[in-house]
Amino acid sequence: MSMMKSLIFVGPGKIELTEKKIPDVGPNDALIKITTTTICGTDIHIFKGEYPVEQGLTIGHEPVGIIEKLGSAVMGYEEGQRVIAGAICPSFSSYACQDGFPSQDGGYIQPDGTCACHGYKATGGWRFGNIIDGTQAEYVLVPDAQANLAPVPDGLTDEQVLMCPDIMSTGFKGAENANIQIGDVVAVFAQGPIGLCATAGAKLKGASTIIAIDGNNERLAMAKKMGADVTLNFKEVDVVDEIMKLTGGRGVDSSIEALGLQSTFEQGLKILKPGGTFSSLGVYSEDLTIPMAHFAAGLGDHTIRTALCPGGKERMRRLLNVIESGRIDLSEMVTHTYALDDIVEAYDLFMHQRDGVLKVAIKP
Amino acid sequence: MSMMKSLIFVGPGKIELTEKKIPDVGPNDALIKITTTTICGTDIHIFKGEYPVEQGLTIGHEPVGIIEKLGSAVMGYEEGQRVIAGAICPSFSSYACQDGFPSQDGGYIQPDGTCACHGYKATGGWRFGNIIDGTQAEYVLVPDAQANLAPVPDGLTDEQVLMCPDIMSTGFKGAENANIQIGDVVAVFAQGPIGLCATAGAKLKGASTIIAIDGNNERLAMAKKMGADVTLNFKEVDVVDEIMKLTGGRGVDSSIEALGLQSTFEQGLKILKPGGTFSSLGVYSEDLTIPMAHFAAGLGDHTIRTALCPGGKERMRRLLNVIESGRIDLSEMVTHTYALDDIVEAYDLFMHQRDGVLKVAIKP
Amino acid sequence: MSMMKSLIFVGPGKIELTEKKIPDVGPNDALIKITTTTICGTDIHIFKGEYPVEQGLTIGHEPVGIIEKLGSAVMGYEEGQRVIAGAICPSFSSYACQDGFPSQDGGYIQPDGTCACHGYKATGGWRFGNIIDGTQAEYVLVPDAQANLAPVPDGLTDEQVLMCPDIMSTGFKGAENANIQIGDVVAVFAQGPIGLCATAGAKLKGASTIIAIDGNNERLAMAKKMGADVTLNFKEVDVVDEIMKLTGGRGVDSSIEALGLQSTFEQGLKILKPGGTFSSLGVYSEDLTIPMAHFAAGLGDHTIRTALCPGGKERMRRLLNVIESGRIDLSEMVTHTYALDDIVEAYDLFMHQRDGVLKVAIKP
Amino acid sequence: MSMMKSLIFVGPGKIELTEKKIPDVGPNDALIKITTTTICGTDIHIFKGEYPVEQGLTIGHEPVGIIEKLGSAVMGYEEGQRVIAGAICPSFSSYACQDGFPSQDGGYIQPDGTCACHGYKATGGWRFGNIIDGTQAEYVLVPDAQANLAPVPDGLTDEQVLMCPDIMSTGFKGAENANIQIGDVVAVFAQGPIGLCATAGAKLKGASTIIAIDGNNERLAMAKKMGADVTLNFKEVDVVDEIMKLTGGRGVDSSIEALGLQSTFEQGLKILKPGGTFSSLGVYSEDLTIPMAHFAAGLGDHTIRTALCPGGKERMRRLLNVIESGRIDLSEMVTHTYALDDIVEAYDLFMHQRDGVLKVAIKP
Repeated sequence: MSMMKSLIFVGPGKIELTEKKIPDVGPNDALIKITTTTICGTDIHIFKGEYPVEQGLTIGHEPVGIIEKLGSAVMGYEEGQRVIAGAICPSFSSYACQDGFPSQDGGYIQPDGTCACHGYKATGGWRFGNIIDGTQAEYVLVPDAQANLAPVPDGLTDEQVLMCPDIMSTGFKGAENANIQIGDVVAVFAQGPIGLCATAGAKLKGASTIIAIDGNNERLAMAKKMGADVTLNFKEVDVVDEIMKLTGGRGVDSSIEALGLQSTFEQGLKILKPGGTFSSLGVYSEDLTIPMAHFAAGLGDHTIRTALCPGGKERMRRLLNVIESGRIDLSEMVTHTYALDDIVEAYDLFMHQRDGVLKVAIKP
Repeated sequence: MSMMKSLIFVGPGKIELTEKKIPDVGPNDALIKITTTTICGTDIHIFKGEYPVEQGLTIGHEPVGIIEKLGSAVMGYEEGQRVIAGAICPSFSSYACQDGFPSQDGGYIQPDGTCACHGYKATGGWRFGNIIDGTQAEYVLVPDAQANLAPVPDGLTDEQVLMCPDIMSTGFKGAENANIQIGDVVAVFAQGPIGLCATAGAKLKGASTIIAIDGNNERLAMAKKMGADVTLNFKEVDVVDEIMKLTGGRGVDSSIEALGLQSTFEQGLKILKPGGTFSSLGVYSEDLTIPMAHFAAGLGDHTIRTALCPGGKERMRRLLNVIESGRIDLSEMVTHTYALDDIVEAYDLFMHQRDGVLKVAIKP
Repeated sequence: MSMMKSLIFVGPGKIELTEKKIPDVGPNDALIKITTTTICGTDIHIFKGEYPVEQGLTIGHEPVGIIEKLGSAVMGYEEGQRVIAGAICPSFSSYACQDGFPSQDGGYIQPDGTCACHGYKATGGWRFGNIIDGTQAEYVLVPDAQANLAPVPDGLTDEQVLMCPDIMSTGFKGAENANIQIGDVVAVFAQGPIGLCATAGAKLKGASTIIAIDGNNERLAMAKKMGADVTLNFKEVDVVDEIMKLTGGRGVDSSIEALGLQSTFEQGLKILKPGGTFSSLGVYSEDLTIPMAHFAAGLGDHTIRTALCPGGKERMRRLLNVIESGRIDLSEMVTHTYALDDIVEAYDLFMHQRDGVLKVAIKP
Repeated sequence: MSMMKSLIFVGPGKIELTEKKIPDVGPNDALIKITTTTICGTDIHIFKGEYPVEQGLTIGHEPVGIIEKLGSAVMGYEEGQRVIAGAICPSFSSYACQDGFPSQDGGYIQPDGTCACHGYKATGGWRFGNIIDGTQAEYVLVPDAQANLAPVPDGLTDEQVLMCPDIMSTGFKGAENANIQIGDVVAVFAQGPIGLCATAGAKLKGASTIIAIDGNNERLAMAKKMGADVTLNFKEVDVVDEIMKLTGGRGVDSSIEALGLQSTFEQGLKILKPGGTFSSLGVYSEDLTIPMAHFAAGLGDHTIRTALCPGGKERMRRLLNVIESGRIDLSEMVTHTYALDDIVEAYDLFMHQRDGVLKVAIKP
């Protein structure tokens, strides 16, 4: 019986690199040998016990690797092929998927008429490192592989494509949800990895003035590289005043929130023009308040949209196209590299945001 | 100098039928002789002093009447022609109008670069009975008449078209904002005049299961006439439980809120499928709370949209088409008729919802 | 080895009821015992040899039946359950499906970088009775069953749901593609089964004036039942003149073409307003000409859209909802019933449109 | 009586710089003193008599200038202010404008129920140099000035903003109509001024592979500057073969046609994926043929869209934002400058495409 190293959740504040059996491959599965993966902010919530997963689960949801073995019903791929798969790994056969919400696979009615999980978990169709074993391991089993394996073009490094499965897909979705028209003014709140990708996405969608907000000047400098026209450090200026001044009192066409706090939620609404769109990417841990003074008492023709990271091989193909075209280079965000054997140390660095860390590459 | 009777706001709790000068007609104006108008819930807020307008302003925003005099630059109409105009009477020349949000005319940047009213009033482009003299009078002056006068087809009574300027346009907008697809399940919270029109609109947009909610069985009976498939009296059943049961745990595709309370806002979110749309028509007088348990922590691919009544002659033309086609008959909602001379009495009836009143026709 | 009766294509002008082996069930398949199926206009093209399929293929693509056997990987269904499946039976795992065009499954790039069929057949993802054995048989094998089996609600007859797999899905798509807004005027050219469903769909989407055109007064009478406000017999009136008169010279907001001829294509464009949408459902056997006189030299802000019947279990679920709600009753279209044993005779009747036939139910 | 120089159409092949009376200013007008204008391909059609205008009409439709005098009802501007106005100068009060098609102002029903021009001219709401005096003069009268005057930000030269009124607005609309998603492959046929702007627009909308096609290598070099990833000279390669190879047989997501010929129309369809969008900007002088072999017999889920240049001050404001942001610099397209006195000579150069001319600035 072959074994593999896996990083598992043991309990709040406790993760452990351990040995697990390499899983069997069913007809619709693919076994991927991981060459690079990374740590996400969500993994830190899991580590701290803020987001509950089962004890013993392998964590991680961003796979870059090589097809080791294909299920009998998976066609058109080859063992040895280099692939990625989205963090959200939908079946694409469910009602939710066919209804246009593949990321919410699992939150809908089942074929037998019951619903698995209304009063649903906040995690829709997220499987890797959530309800099945994840990617911080030597191997990962990809379910519904026919729909989820995306070949990586030759000539792209692991680091260049490492953001596709989650950060880039999520950040771009924030821009896509923001209803951006050519000539728009867009504000992006928080410039962590997802916010930076939202900034890059807003530029790709045609915004002509992108205002990036953060409290960290290094991140604001990176935001400039990603396409921000104006950067505001909220520790130094009154963000709302500044933006209303910049827009001649008109407000922005769209706000993108990439943090998950009441304060940024409120600011994003406050600067929004009547008719504007608020695109939310943040994971909120507390109830939100919509202040009526910033919401026109419900009469402002406003739109608020939330999102969960899109997955699937077509999404990955498009993101890989963007990378390959040279429109954007996210490998700059990979500030550190660790061996899988040292992953616990990498968690420590990432969690405490030491040493200017943005993203960490983990190499089994 | 010709005079006309007008109902004016005197102060909180005090309105008065008085005499005013018939206004002069500028190049882009039209003077309309009112044949029928009505009282809206918003007028009650004005009466009570909850919504501030200037002392002496003529109230009312739903005109049916005859063109008395046309401005020199208004083309293609004739004096003596029967017309309506929307409650929201946009210029259609402003930035907001051209940006796709005519109802928000007034909340945007002005040509000189300043903004009239960010931190804007909750009322966007609403002019009649808000910032200019309204329709509860013998005459009303329609600004930007070229864009706002809509001829009434012969054969339609005043009562049949009386809802077009506000209630019908608003209620239908609630359905239009709800992203309804053929086969959808839609819940409409509150079956006052606007909610009833939202119910009718949801049917027109292809919903196959429309669930109408109210605490008044007469209104629920009217909801059935307007297209509801299922009615729920919230005093008799647990609305959330009932809807989750009706949908097999799936939730609804869209919720429409037509009241403006935290409780209905919350219920509408609670029963919403992941990926669903919450269309809000209510005027909220207090800050709203979004409970994260019903909002998937911000990861549910949800959309929340608000709206202000669409206006303009093209909107009116389409609503008149719907009436003329016989798809819907809103004259049933006109439960009482008063002479303009008795309008103060009509306010009293309408405000206290006596005698099964839904809408009151006022005839100068 | 169990055998089943199947209607196969032998050669142009020749079909034959024969015996075939009941197929094996792979992990993602389901074997359905057909209780009712029907004959489609496309089947007539196949019969005549106008549309090429392989010799020996079982024809037919509209299944109503009972699950006989489920593949090992298909979850949430039970043997004995009553189901339908769409005529177009997409994998939902392909690039095309994830790109929003499941009906075009098969016309896109494959995982290995090659394209199965650019310069593609006109038939996208259509499988039953096209590239795999179809439904005019005692049993049919449904591929990708997890994505395609749709349970039929108790209380609906086979005849009520028989149009869902193709005619209703296609006709409604014609209305969905027509960009119909509340208050629109829509013209539907040809009132065969698909045109009748387009008429019904246009009503569901909020059109307030639906103009149905055909040369057969019985079909025009049925169009009235399906929601047409005005019917025009092209043998009796000049359709273009009549519609321009009806619309006061404005033209229609949308034209739906459900036949596939140059003449109806042209008329549909001729009556279309600037900015209007032409939704095409017809299968054209010859090159089309766009006359510039009716197309504003390419400057009219026009949209032309084509469609292939949407499939998948979510689509079927919604159509079944519409049927169950009583919004529409398509069982009236089933004018004749035949045993599978007499199917060759049924083809003859249907092909020659004898005896007022609209659709024929075939019962194994 | 003050006079001004104006270039008028005398007859086919004959234009003349002459003196005209400076027009009176009505309540909704503005008189603009032209500082720079240009010559458009359409003007050449007028010159040749291919596009009929009235004898004596001043030609030209792209104004950059200074407000000389404002009508009494025009608010928020100042005399002396520097402005542009769109080539299409809609009233924004008509039914068509409110229906979402301001460029088609004039092709719709009028308030009195008649239609000015169904069987409409190909020119919708185009007024300058078409039905009213144009911009190749010392002054131009802007109708509906409140809706159409767009202030030019300080610091932008006339040359930088000269493309906004027509070329840039049209080219960008071609990209906006192409339904471009992040990661798309887009082909742009013809790289004249409008095609170049469509290329730039496709980049702004998120296409990751833009293929520019022309027969002129200088224009292809300019296309690279505007954002093309790949350029194809149709005189050197088989464009269809090349694109199918480049896309691995998949075809492009969108084709943009910026010329108006059957050959480019056909090629654009031939390379289009099932489900793809064909965005047409060309002005076609002959009937078009849609070859069924490239159109999936009408079953390919294809969309074809045409457009006429968007106008209005909000459109201009957004285009000016794009220029001001530095996303794009179109002043490079201005290859030559002439005094108004020498405009006949400028026509000659432009018409014969001598000396690498792209666009000519005309200075009164």
